[in-house]
Parts: sequence; structure tokens; C-alpha cells
Amino acid sequence: MKILGIDPGLAIVGFGVIEKSNNNFTAIDYGVISTPKDDTFPQRLTTIYQCVGDLIDTFKPDAIAIEELFFMKNITTGIPVSHARGVILLACYQKTRNIFEYTPMQIKLALTGTGSADKHQMQYMTKSILNLETIPKPDDAADALAVAICHGQTNQLLVDNLIK
Amino acid sequence: MKILGIDPGLAIVGFGVIEKSNNNFTAIDYGVISTPKDDTFPQRLTTIYQCVGDLIDTFKPDAIAIEELFFMKNITTGIPVSHARGVILLACYQKTRNIFEYTPMQIKLALTGTGSADKHQMQYMTKSILNLETIPKPDDAADALAVAICHGQTNQLLVDNLIK
Repeated sequence: MKILGIDPGLAIVGFGVIEKSNNNFTAIDYGVISTPKDDTFPQRLTTIYQCVGDLIDTFKPDAIAIEELFFMKNITTGIPVSHARGVILLACYQKTRNIFEYTPMQIKLALTGTGSADKHQMQYMTKSILNLETIPKPDDAADALAVAICHGQTNQLLVDNLIK
Repeated sequence: MKILGIDPGLAIVGFGVIEKSNNNFTAIDYGVISTPKDDTFPQRLTTIYQCVGDLIDTFKPDAIAIEELFFMKNITTGIPVSHARGVILLACYQKTRNIFEYTPMQIKLALTGTGSADKHQMQYMTKSILNLETIPKPDDAADALAVAICHGQTNQLLVDNLIK
């Protein structure tokens, strides 16, 4: 099963494509979509929409896993990132119905066994599970790989995490 | 000049199309795009994206005016509405570069001369400016007409309100 993980953002969207075969995970590709600050806001949303669509066309994932947003503290960041996540979900929905979302806590739990794991622990486990030689960079790509792994490890929760 | 006003939302998106000729405003059409609660979230975003695109194709506005979001108090509502506003901006940007945004206060000021006008005052002025026999319904359509009128009345602010 091929899984595309997405870490939503406006300036940087992380993505990670993994293959799950039996219980082995391998990284196929990962990286980021960046939108220049000098572009207008609608232009940046359009870039994200197009690039996410291109990623899906290129890798043809069986499922897409995307991080849920939590901005209880920072509404200023939350509004633009939510706009970006809107166009990401649209791009995904136009290509597949297999879109799943996971909270940061679910992702931490799936990878480390604890919901309070720190960034270093998460990146270490991502590297380890994917048998990578180094921690994947940048952080947004590592986060996207993590949400993809989380989906691969929590198949039994599929129905609960299908975006409703 | 034909102006499409949009009041963003997830369950209901208000729209209003007006024509400004000299200093006269007339309503061409207004209404709402509704998305059923039973549809999935990505499906609702897709409906909004498609319907906004259809509106632009139908009315071919010279400019689009959209309300800016303020959710300092209610982040729970703010996140889904921001997702919806993201796909609205995308649909607009794919058809035109003339997209403008106005804060609720700018809209109130433009229509009533005071930033503290209440809903009733706003609706009364919308009806009056457009020479309508009754207050336009539902409220979301009236709000969309108001942001369109605001754009028509504040041409001198065009550059400031172009979405950056």
C-alpha cells in the first residue's frame, strides 16, 4: 500500500510518500512545497493546490493521510494554514476518496507509543521505521512521513479517521 | 462595473452580484450556496469550489469582493470557515486577479458611515442602495451584497484592499 502523508502549511507544505509491504515501511520520496512570501495569498493557495494535485498524479497513492490542525493558542497562524489545508483537501478529494486525518497525538502514539513524544523522538522513530541513514529533512517532510507511517500502522482505525 | 460579493462560510456561502453604473447600484442576482451536513468535509469544500467557479463563469464579474475573517473569539468556527474561504479564493484566482477583501468594519463604514452599525441597519441600507422592495434574504446573501456594494463605493481604496 502506497501512502502519501501531508503536513499542511502556507509557506511550507511537507509531503512524504511511503510504501507499506507486510509490516515493512520504505520511503519512496519526501520533500516540501514552498510558496514565496512575495506571492499574493490566493496565488500561494493556487500553487499549493496545483503541487498537491501533481504529487497525487505522480505517485498515485492508495491513501492520503493529513495532519489535523490544532490552533487553540495561535489563531493568527491558524487562519492562513486552514485556508491552505482547504485547498489541499480539495486537491486530494478531486483524485481520491481515501483521505484520512490524524491528530498530532495519534501520530505520536502510533510512532513512539506515547502521546507526549518530543520532536527529536518522533524524527528518530521516523528514520528508524523507514530504515533511513539520516533523519529526513526538512522538519515538515519528516512530519509528513510520520503521518503517513501513522496511517500505515493504524489500519484498524481507518473508518474512524476517514475525514467526515 | 459588475461586482460579485462573497460572504464565506462552510454550511452557507452568500453571494451577491451587483452592477455599478455611475453612482447607481442594481442587484443582478443573489443567493446562497449550501452544503449538506451529511456530506464529508472535503466533499463540501469541493461543492463550494465548483459553485463559486460556476458563479464566476455565469456572471463574469469585473471584480470580486470577499469578506475578511475575524475569529478572535471563536476558533472552532474559524477553522472550517477558513478551509472554505481557501477554496473560494482558489476558485476566484483561477478566473480573475481582481479579488479584494474587506473587513466587517470597512463594510459597515462604507454602507452606513459608522463602523458600529448593527445587522438591521446594514440590511436596511443594502435594500435602500439597491432600490429593492424588501430586505434581501437570507442574511448571508444580504451580507454578500453588502461587501459588493462596499467595493463599489470604495474604489479609491482598490490597491489597499487587493488581496496580498
